[in-house]
Parts: sequence; C-alpha cells; structure tokens
Amino acid sequence: MCSPGLIESLCHPHAPTLGRRALLRSAAVLGAVPALVGAPSPSASAATPPPDPAPAVRGRVVDLTHELSTDFPVWLRFTEEPVTRQAATLAADGYNDKINTINEHTGTHIDAPLHFDDSGLSVAQLPAESLVAPLVVVRIAQRAAQDPTTELEVDDILAWERRYGRIPDGAFVAMDSGWSQRVSIPGAFLNYDADTGAYLWPGISPEAAAFLVGDRDVVGAGVDTTSLDTGTREIPLAHQTILPAGLYGVECLADLDQVPDSGAVLVVGAPKMRAGTGGPARVLAFV
Amino acid sequence: MCSPGLIESLCHPHAPTLGRRALLRSAAVLGAVPALVGAPSPSASAATPPPDPAPAVRGRVVDLTHELSTDFPVWLRFTEEPVTRQAATLAADGYNDKINTINEHTGTHIDAPLHFDDSGLSVAQLPAESLVAPLVVVRIAQRAAQDPTTELEVDDILAWERRYGRIPDGAFVAMDSGWSQRVSIPGAFLNYDADTGAYLWPGISPEAAAFLVGDRDVVGAGVDTTSLDTGTREIPLAHQTILPAGLYGVECLADLDQVPDSGAVLVVGAPKMRAGTGGPARVLAFV
Repeated sequence: MCSPGLIESLCHPHAPTLGRRALLRSAAVLGAVPALVGAPSPSASAATPPPDPAPAVRGRVVDLTHELSTDFPVWLRFTEEPVTRQAATLAADGYNDKINTINEHTGTHIDAPLHFDDSGLSVAQLPAESLVAPLVVVRIAQRAAQDPTTELEVDDILAWERRYGRIPDGAFVAMDSGWSQRVSIPGAFLNYDADTGAYLWPGISPEAAAFLVGDRDVVGAGVDTTSLDTGTREIPLAHQTILPAGLYGVECLADLDQVPDSGAVLVVGAPKMRAGTGGPARVLAFV
Repeated sequence: MCSPGLIESLCHPHAPTLGRRALLRSAAVLGAVPALVGAPSPSASAATPPPDPAPAVRGRVVDLTHELSTDFPVWLRFTEEPVTRQAATLAADGYNDKINTINEHTGTHIDAPLHFDDSGLSVAQLPAESLVAPLVVVRIAQRAAQDPTTELEVDDILAWERRYGRIPDGAFVAMDSGWSQRVSIPGAFLNYDADTGAYLWPGISPEAAAFLVGDRDVVGAGVDTTSLDTGTREIPLAHQTILPAGLYGVECLADLDQVPDSGAVLVVGAPKMRAGTGGPARVLAFV
C-alpha cells in the first residue's frame, strides 16, 4: 500500500511527477553558491552547531500578486466570482472574521498538474522546493500591444537565451505581455471582443510549451494574463502540455515589469489545500 | 483625498501600521550583507546593468504549513469548517476545478492587524517586505507536555537571547510547543477537556506579547497551536496586544522542530484578499 504522499509517484508509475530532474537541479542551484548569512545569527552555542550552509533570503521583495477581491476579473469558464461573507465583527464578537468562497483558479493563482491531469500532483503535493526557482522573464509586451492574441514563441525564449544564457535548470519562466495593469481597467484584462465573441489576451504557444517541457528543465511557467493559453484557443494546448508533464503554472502574475529579465528568485506561496487543483497564491520575487 | 493604499497610514493617523521601524530595519538586515547570487545569472548585456545587490534565496526549504482539508481541526469559535465543491472535472469539462469556502482563520494562517483592530492593516495591506523575516523559535514543548495551557513567557524569550543574542530587529518570533504533530491525532490539537469544558493548548502570555510589542522590534509572532492565546483565556490578551500594535500573527504553524532556534529566514505566503482579516498562508522557512 502506498502512503498518500507517494501515491502519485509510486502507485501510478506512469504519472508525471513535478520536474524531478528540475527539482534536484534546482536544489543544487540554490545550494551551490557559497554560504552567506541572510539574517545576522549570533553564533550558536557549542551544543548547537550553526546550520551549514547558512540560509540567505535577501534583496528587495517585489510582490507579483494582484490584490484579490470580489470584483477581480473572472473568465466565464470559472463562472463563480469570489464571495466574501463577514462572519464576525470586533464590535459584536470581539474580533473581525470573514469566510471566503473562491474558485481555485481566481486572481494570481497556481495551476497544479492535477488541474489538467487526474494523476497529476495536487497543489498540496507539489514539493515545497519546487516553489522556489530562478525567475526567467520573457517579454512580449510590445508585440502584445499590437496583437492581443500574440503568443510567447520558442523564438522569444531563444532570444532571451542569446542575451542571458541558457535557462537555468529548475527555473520558472514567466511571460510578460504587459497585461498586468489591465486588471484595474474595466473589461481590459479579459478583453472581450463583441465583434467576434472572443476573448483576446496573450498566452504561451503550444510549441513554446513543448519546448519548455521537452528541451529545458523548468519547474513551471506563468503568464500575466488569465490563462496559459490565449483566449482564442479553443483547445488549451499550453495547459495540456505543461501540466500533465508535471510542471505547474501561475496565471494573473502582476508587475513583472518590476523584476529583471534574469537574476531574480521566485517564491510561490501556493495554498496547501488537500487535492487542490490550484489556488490563489502569494507570489514574491527577490531582486 | 487619500488613495486606498494610504488610508490606514495617512487618513487614520492614529491607526497603527505594521512595525514601521521593524520593517525598515528588516530591510536593512536583509540588505546589509554582501551581495551573493542565489541563482546563476549570466552577466547581463551592457544595456542591462546587473541588479545590485544580487538576490539570494538559498538553503533548504522547510515547509511550516499544515495541509488544509475539510477535516482540519477548527475551533468552535470559527464554527464553519472548510467546504470544497468540485466545480469541473477533466472527464466532463476538460479540466479539474474546485471552489473552496474557507474561514480566514483556518489551517496554518495569518492574522492581520484588522482581525483585532478596525483601523488595522488588512492582510492585503501588509507590506510584502514584512512577510520576510529572520525566524526566532522559542521552544516550550517540554513544559507543554506537562502543562497543556502553559504560556510562552518573557523568561523564555530572555533565555533564548542569552543563548543566541538579542532578537534581531524585523524578526518573527514563533512558539514551538510541540503541538504540530497533534493535528493528525483526533481531538489532540484542540484538546477539549470534558471535565472542565475547556480547550487546553499553549499560547503566548500577555506579558510576553507586551514584551515583544514594546521592548523588541519584531514584525510578528506565531504559534503551533490554534491560537496566539491559550484556550483557557477568556479574554484573548495576546491577540489584543499583538495585532492592534500593527504586528501580524501566524497560527497552526507546522514542523517548527525542523528549523533551528536561530538563523532561519521565514517567508509568509499570505493571501492577498482585499480587506481580509487573515487567511490560510503558505509558510516556508529557509534553513
């Protein structure tokens, strides 16, 4: 019998696991540099050897998370908008408290492999190590300003690599299409086109998704739009390529223009809901 | 007129803000050490100067978050347990999707100042920088094994300081009472005592809370039990001291025995729900 935590990798031998190679290499990447103490830690007593290597979390924090509220733009497919109910008030109960009803694919959120793969890892099963990754930002905002259904292409990734070198193993690749600011402009984020009845936002091309899955060793990929796939793709090929491969996605990323193309480190504060297909996450970058 | 983001600090001049001093000092702490590249970043082109100082997020990741599920022990005061509803399935809809209804004070979660202060910061207003902090772990598990309503006292904090030095400015102080493993033992986490009708778990004493607020410069305090206050305190003095002072709390922390007393760095992946009083968070430590 398998323990629940091993079910995906052992009981379902054909089930993809989250970037195992990438994960190991990610750990190596994060551990291969010389030790540095991020917070001053007075030397421990003789009985407690100092941790080796010492941890470091440093640099400026950039919040890549949109504020979530009941009026955050929600695509029709996820029909129910967030609902917030006041459950207690300081005046009446001695404390303020709310109960929120939220679709797992709302706001700045993570897509777990389970979202598109019944055998895939849930959001709670994603290894914590995979939630920390070198952040690669590929920008297509200039093109997206002209063509709202443009896609992140393999050529965009290769152009990034010509400038910054090969995508580090264990990295997370994010598409910056300039869509972040549209969240606060009514209608602009989902960008419904009444003429065609289509939603027009940029996404990741199936070819680029396949390249990231097959030719690079990343833990996940993300976008600043509401979906990994452009709104005009009836078959969500980017999702169908990335998630069943064991990678995770992040959608509705905010403020990618505030982080460098290369060199930042991403921390995805994913919710840990049992059997969750994803969920609103706090996504931070250290630059 | 104030912009929404400034309302707390400017429109309500008497409203406490989150550890402004602590925050500035926290940034200084995180930035004062020599630069180190956490992820290999090929030198940027001449047009893009490399970020300085380079970010670093390194070390082993320890997940301080309990898995959240519909059977996570929820204290009576927060009457409604989490509810999960399958909103779509891969077979029928092409993707798996769920909608969760969750009280903001469920599972491993953050308490924003707003939880106990109508003028306090909401979870979305907490500065992202404050969610990254040197982690101080004060252990009272041996005492708690004998006395389930023991409290973290000023003397426990002073004993920690004799061993490791003064609590760093901008730190987060966590009480490890050995309660984490009880989550999976039915009844043991909330620990209802039928004889007295009381819930018996450890918390932070009002004096220790006042010491952290008044005599040290921390961003927040946390516990591995369901509440900052012991179950037997009718008036939640630890909450009433810590949160209105502009600090945040974290409750139901997991696996604090896996991190050192001193030297780890905490990242609180708090949800960013508008006007949220708190919420389930992904809490990671780098050791």
